[in-house]
Amino acid sequence: MQADPAKTRPASSERVTMIGDAAIEVLATKGSRGLTHRAVDLHLSWPEGTTSRYYRTRDALLTAVVQRLIEVEVSDIDAWRGATETDGPITRRRIARVLANALRHWVRGRTRQLARYELSLEGLRRPAVHDALIAGRKQLNGIVARALEADGFPAPEAQATLLVSAIDGLCHDYLLHPEIAVDARDVEDMLMRWLDAEHGAPGQGAVPSPGAK
Amino acid sequence: MQADPAKTRPASSERVTMIGDAAIEVLATKGSRGLTHRAVDLHLSWPEGTTSRYYRTRDALLTAVVQRLIEVEVSDIDAWRGATETDGPITRRRIARVLANALRHWVRGRTRQLARYELSLEGLRRPAVHDALIAGRKQLNGIVARALEADGFPAPEAQATLLVSAIDGLCHDYLLHPEIAVDARDVEDMLMRWLDAEHGAPGQGAVPSPGAK
Repeated sequence: MQADPAKTRPASSERVTMIGDAAIEVLATKGSRGLTHRAVDLHLSWPEGTTSRYYRTRDALLTAVVQRLIEVEVSDIDAWRGATETDGPITRRRIARVLANALRHWVRGRTRQLARYELSLEGLRRPAVHDALIAGRKQLNGIVARALEADGFPAPEAQATLLVSAIDGLCHDYLLHPEIAVDARDVEDMLMRWLDAEHGAPGQGAVPSPGAK
Repeated sequence: MQADPAKTRPASSERVTMIGDAAIEVLATKGSRGLTHRAVDLHLSWPEGTTSRYYRTRDALLTAVVQRLIEVEVSDIDAWRGATETDGPITRRRIARVLANALRHWVRGRTRQLARYELSLEGLRRPAVHDALIAGRKQLNGIVARALEADGFPAPEAQATLLVSAIDGLCHDYLLHPEIAVDARDVEDMLMRWLDAEHGAPGQGAVPSPGAK
């Protein structure tokens, strides 16, 4: 990553990355309220004032955090794309597995996801943060939509949106309310049944369930 | 609601309610970071220092907000219970409708839900906030679990947890990322297909979909 040459004080790319990573940690542990330039300096054991030389305002700092979050998650997005778009035909089992793996991966990357939830709320008040998060999410939704489309699903865009939002809801509860969260290991088979039901339903009539009333 | 007689300054119940409602508004518009005693005073056009006479610490103020949120949502919970437990036998269509209506209701009560998401994150650092939120959610999950059980679902507890978490994920995106959110009007039929698939699946073998691979 190159420092922005338009900035009057050129930032070293290493320090920019360090600030982004530290700010993600601070967001996850202290919340949005705890994210200050000073807290980032403290986290990095830097002299007070260092972070604010790179990002003057809170807006600038928050936008930098989102950029770093997305930079880190690009590898996730590439992994999703690789898992759905390469190596033979799309199968429903493969889509379910990719989605379940994504959930497990999010849950393991706890700090980043907590930072993302904080930033989602900050996005209500900061359009740049909102727009950056939406751009990342659109990529994920698009990958799922293309996989569903390749497998012949009706309304793949709406289905993909629903699936990713629902899985994010499972992740949100798993990280914030573990006492009432579903076990990520149970998710793949449930997704498989869900995909089967949705694939057959709108185009060819609802699949009757043996016990349906 | 009665003021706590153990408090040295007895709080009028009306003022306690006003503080709770104002704090929910402040949380939803300014975020957790913006929730201060002063901000609540300002929102209510009260002299500075009034709110802090009722709740000295930030912890006390946050716990009061959760209590007020739950107080308001008790009517929602009663509505859920009424919709699932009265007036004839449980049907799958009725469960789907109750869940879809809950989502629509949450989406309409935007301010409360945004405050709840802020408090969920605060709960990571404040056990009292966390515990109060969990208690409310367990009630909702329990109502759904009993309805699923009455309709003969396998694993009703796990199913209820999954359904409520997934619907909360849809609500989260609808309120925070409307550009990539599923339309609440599409949800009931999707839930119906999901419930059919889940009802038939674990006990009696997966329902084959016409296009399943």
